[in-house]
Amino acid sequence: MGRKTLLERLRLGEAPPLLGRVAAEEGIDVGELAQAMLEGTAVLPCNGRRELESPRVVGGGSRTKVNANIGTSSDYAGIEDELVKLLAAVEAGADAVMDLSTGGPIDRVRDAVVANSPIPVGSVPIYQAAVRAMDERGSIVAMSKDDMFRAIEDHCASGVDFITVHCGMTAGALETLKANPRVADIVSRGGAFLAGWILHNDKENPLYAEFDRLLDIAREHEVTLSLGDGMRPGCIEDATDAAQVAELVVLGELVKRSREAGVQCMVEGPGHIPLHQVEANIRMAKAITRGAPFYVLGPLVTDVAAGYDHIAAAVGGAVAAMSGADFLCYVTPREHLGLPTAEDVREGVIVTRIAAHAADVARGIPGARDWDLDMSRARKGLDWERQLELALDPVKARKLFGERQVEGEEACTMCGDFCAMRFISEYLGRDGMPACE
Amino acid sequence: MGRKTLLERLRLGEAPPLLGRVAAEEGIDVGELAQAMLEGTAVLPCNGRRELESPRVVGGGSRTKVNANIGTSSDYAGIEDELVKLLAAVEAGADAVMDLSTGGPIDRVRDAVVANSPIPVGSVPIYQAAVRAMDERGSIVAMSKDDMFRAIEDHCASGVDFITVHCGMTAGALETLKANPRVADIVSRGGAFLAGWILHNDKENPLYAEFDRLLDIAREHEVTLSLGDGMRPGCIEDATDAAQVAELVVLGELVKRSREAGVQCMVEGPGHIPLHQVEANIRMAKAITRGAPFYVLGPLVTDVAAGYDHIAAAVGGAVAAMSGADFLCYVTPREHLGLPTAEDVREGVIVTRIAAHAADVARGIPGARDWDLDMSRARKGLDWERQLELALDPVKARKLFGERQVEGEEACTMCGDFCAMRFISEYLGRDGMPACE
Repeated sequence: MGRKTLLERLRLGEAPPLLGRVAAEEGIDVGELAQAMLEGTAVLPCNGRRELESPRVVGGGSRTKVNANIGTSSDYAGIEDELVKLLAAVEAGADAVMDLSTGGPIDRVRDAVVANSPIPVGSVPIYQAAVRAMDERGSIVAMSKDDMFRAIEDHCASGVDFITVHCGMTAGALETLKANPRVADIVSRGGAFLAGWILHNDKENPLYAEFDRLLDIAREHEVTLSLGDGMRPGCIEDATDAAQVAELVVLGELVKRSREAGVQCMVEGPGHIPLHQVEANIRMAKAITRGAPFYVLGPLVTDVAAGYDHIAAAVGGAVAAMSGADFLCYVTPREHLGLPTAEDVREGVIVTRIAAHAADVARGIPGARDWDLDMSRARKGLDWERQLELALDPVKARKLFGERQVEGEEACTMCGDFCAMRFISEYLGRDGMPACE
Repeated sequence: MGRKTLLERLRLGEAPPLLGRVAAEEGIDVGELAQAMLEGTAVLPCNGRRELESPRVVGGGSRTKVNANIGTSSDYAGIEDELVKLLAAVEAGADAVMDLSTGGPIDRVRDAVVANSPIPVGSVPIYQAAVRAMDERGSIVAMSKDDMFRAIEDHCASGVDFITVHCGMTAGALETLKANPRVADIVSRGGAFLAGWILHNDKENPLYAEFDRLLDIAREHEVTLSLGDGMRPGCIEDATDAAQVAELVVLGELVKRSREAGVQCMVEGPGHIPLHQVEANIRMAKAITRGAPFYVLGPLVTDVAAGYDHIAAAVGGAVAAMSGADFLCYVTPREHLGLPTAEDVREGVIVTRIAAHAADVARGIPGARDWDLDMSRARKGLDWERQLELALDPVKARKLFGERQVEGEEACTMCGDFCAMRFISEYLGRDGMPACE
């Protein structure tokens, strides 16, 4: 055995400097963070071979984190585009990126993303196994179980910090799906590939059947597992159904085994969920997984918002994070319509950060509310420069302000001469306020 | 006495055709709608002199409605711009518009909006009273109570369907505010004007003290009252505080008096509210006002989203409407930064409609979920034309799809050759599905 993992070191009572850095940035107690990691309610994804410039903790009472999915598809397969998207995500304030490439030079794209990302990088090895199987064997379902584990090994060795593995897509979960038909069946790519494989080969999902083999690879490379939800509902009609819950039960069992093996893990969740079911979904997932960090894609609270799915996701994401979700995967305006551009990536990250921050305010995360307070004081003081600086996206705020502002005006053009904030200050006599004209 | 009001006719057991039209459009029972209007839990704003092309009911188990604020300020005071905004709001699917003009030829702007709007129009007469007082008397606080009532009379006579009146901004509510200092004091313009007037003149708010006079005018012109929340919090730090609740208690009393007088009324609400307080705010307002239709501005769940406040409002608005709010006033991306453009208006309406629809799905409003189901079936069937038609904003969906689509591709470019929906159909054997390649 080589180097000890972070969890093994924590169990020995060591205090790895990485934890101290992260705790200080979050304004949380390092001892409490260590305890959360030992209990498995927080993870700190960082590949054993990596020195992350900006490590991030997920869960354990820390700030809600935001992930941006990037990566090629068969239609848009260039490395350069993905590096531009990576930069856009990082500059917009993403806490992690996932490289979901399925087109072009997949290994080189991933290597470039890992090499250039200051924040944790995740990937989905089964995508690459599927692409290779198509190339080499003519069909996704012709992949061998060794092909799957080879892809996982390759990804872990290439330095990614977390991997999505759809271990809960079992033969049993599929039986549940078949007995309870859906409108949209399976919309998770990894989940669909494995489901097809199970049905075609009439065998159990190797990522479930040989979960210990997966744990060994993850431990060796110190990669955090993100237990994928291959049964995540792809439309609100399918939400919170038997297949989704059956898979979640399996994931709960695998969380327990990961913890016992000293492998950090989190759990992925939906998807498309109507607003009145969001809180229940999060609380159910947290209960079944015994508080594992919960990583949601959306949830989208309606299916009809194509072009604005980042907003449908912000609504669901804010409520999810307030209810206990720890990690929000962004959705971009291009969701359901095409592969996002760098501008879509930027917009997706910003909007998801708004959802995450709204939840952090609601959850009482240290410092969250102070930001709003600073902004509101600047607003009351008609201090425009400070307001623009404090905006979550100062670039867009400055642009929108500048486009409509009138030279020499103290108030904004919304109310112009009839600014309520300025007017009332004279009569309520707050000190330091501009007098009403 | 002249013509009977809608409520008076309902009380006599008549069945005005207007109700039948609205009930049919909503898919609700006309008898139940009439009962809700009689109880005051639904309103149908329609000026007695108007034939509304597209009347709308607010409350009573109907679809959540969306209002768009338009109108001039001292900096942007042209009629043409406002008519373009009106058109943008109507085309984007707004259910009502409010003309909040405070600059330029205010009467002519309002007349043009009323003449050209197929949907109900609201206004805030105290704005015009304040503008006139500045012009004629040199100060807002120099307006007389007759100036206030004259503006209200003028607006009602000009054909608006509902008016915001800040009757709850009483001397008592102001004492509560002074005893409980705020970060942002008063941010409602009408509320601020009246608060300044009360403090400067050391008199009670005439709109409260002479509420019967206001009721007479409203009844005469058959104008629906929208009881304004002059104390609405302007930042999350001020949310759900003593002043806000003190005003709400007054509004509850005035709702009762309006109902007794046969005048339709709704109640306006916040504002800036942290996400974990939104539901409580709505339920409190509904309880205190005995189920009056509740009309919220936002609520914004964070103060730091300048440039994206429509999204902060969509998060709060969706949760508010799910919790019982009936009417969402849009917020545009330009909120807190300047007077919106027509493009801002369009974006604000669409995003607020997403919030309203997500809430309608959650509330089980008839037909709401069917739309999502149709979309999801089209999505599963890879029927792109149908998906684009069914999108809440087909124009934007078509644009985003077209920009990244590749000729001859059946799936979108997000997953390209590795489309989960297409792939799994072969193995799950759903009929009518495209086979996997």
